[in-house]
Amino acid sequence: MVRQHNITLSSFPRGFHLITNEVLSQVDLNGIQVGLLHLFIKHTSASLTINENADPTVRTDFESHFNKSVPENAPYYQHTYEGSDDMPAHLKASTLGSSVTIPITNGRLNLGTWQGIYLGEHRDHGGSRKLIVTVYS
Amino acid sequence: MVRQHNITLSSFPRGFHLITNEVLSQVDLNGIQVGLLHLFIKHTSASLTINENADPTVRTDFESHFNKSVPENAPYYQHTYEGSDDMPAHLKASTLGSSVTIPITNGRLNLGTWQGIYLGEHRDHGGSRKLIVTVYS
Amino acid sequence: MVRQHNITLSSFPRGFHLITNEVLSQVDLNGIQVGLLHLFIKHTSASLTINENADPTVRTDFESHFNKSVPENAPYYQHTYEGSDDMPAHLKASTLGSSVTIPITNGRLNLGTWQGIYLGEHRDHGGSRKLIVTVYS
Repeated sequence: MVRQHNITLSSFPRGFHLITNEVLSQVDLNGIQVGLLHLFIKHTSASLTINENADPTVRTDFESHFNKSVPENAPYYQHTYEGSDDMPAHLKASTLGSSVTIPITNGRLNLGTWQGIYLGEHRDHGGSRKLIVTVYS
Repeated sequence: MVRQHNITLSSFPRGFHLITNEVLSQVDLNGIQVGLLHLFIKHTSASLTINENADPTVRTDFESHFNKSVPENAPYYQHTYEGSDDMPAHLKASTLGSSVTIPITNGRLNLGTWQGIYLGEHRDHGGSRKLIVTVYS
Repeated sequence: MVRQHNITLSSFPRGFHLITNEVLSQVDLNGIQVGLLHLFIKHTSASLTINENADPTVRTDFESHFNKSVPENAPYYQHTYEGSDDMPAHLKASTLGSSVTIPITNGRLNLGTWQGIYLGEHRDHGGSRKLIVTVYS
């Protein structure tokens, strides 16, 4: 069985944000013994990844690290007309990825205790973001 | 239903290349209401990722960025006998990833307006590349 | 058909390790004509990726590269109370990813000749790691 849902996230500020609960509130996994949940972001300047759901400074450090490893205003950027945050946003999106796939077991996401789903919002004013969740069971 | 197809890409020069149309020309999504398309590259020195399909300078900037963040001839490389482009190619392949998974909705890839599939060709002379597309519906 | 198995890996030292055989020993792909194998790691400081299965110096160079591109003790890290290896481990985990998805064809993983599955153990003392393998066919 395959099901698909659209999710529209409200605007998040630039940085990394825990969206596990927001995703789970929009999809019913009850009754799924084993399966997979695929979450996809329909944008090229924001990303999805899985990391620690507890200490919020992990998310702060993600933003610091990726701002350093993917700098704004690198002298070799040619794609600059959408602002200094735009080309780094594309590079961060591909480094982190545009989808996550998570096992479902006994009606729940089978994440580790400390794992949550992160939205990486890489634009200064990215606005609302569209996700597609596809559930296989 | 699961279907699988082999795709053989012709040789691309080192850099990032939009291959969405080439993939879609080899697989028929008609009649698939909801599903997933999984695209896998059978090589360790080339990658697949999703990013902007419009301005070609995004792809140029990808090549510049990853050449800088994964340099050739780093003094600590031990795997050097296949040429200076080889070890960076392995590292870029794992940083970007060897597969993409994309939702299918109403017979089409449900990509965002500006999203396309990139081949990252990380070798100077990578030659022809083999992909496997698996479609679930 | 969907099947799911838990895999518990014994402790690996920090670095990159080939685990293809360990995964294959725990799941029976016989009789699967076409399908996908999804492998997920339930941790935020270890990763899964696909790369060269032959020369072990590729794995050594992976460790060297990611130690340089994701340094310990960066002055801007705030999440430091679990040790200097912890925050870099989180960043490496998201850069490389927490799952891989591999085509199955005629009862075998349809990997390229030189491809294997890597565990990226990013902690100094990560201990045993839990994986979930989900097989679709």
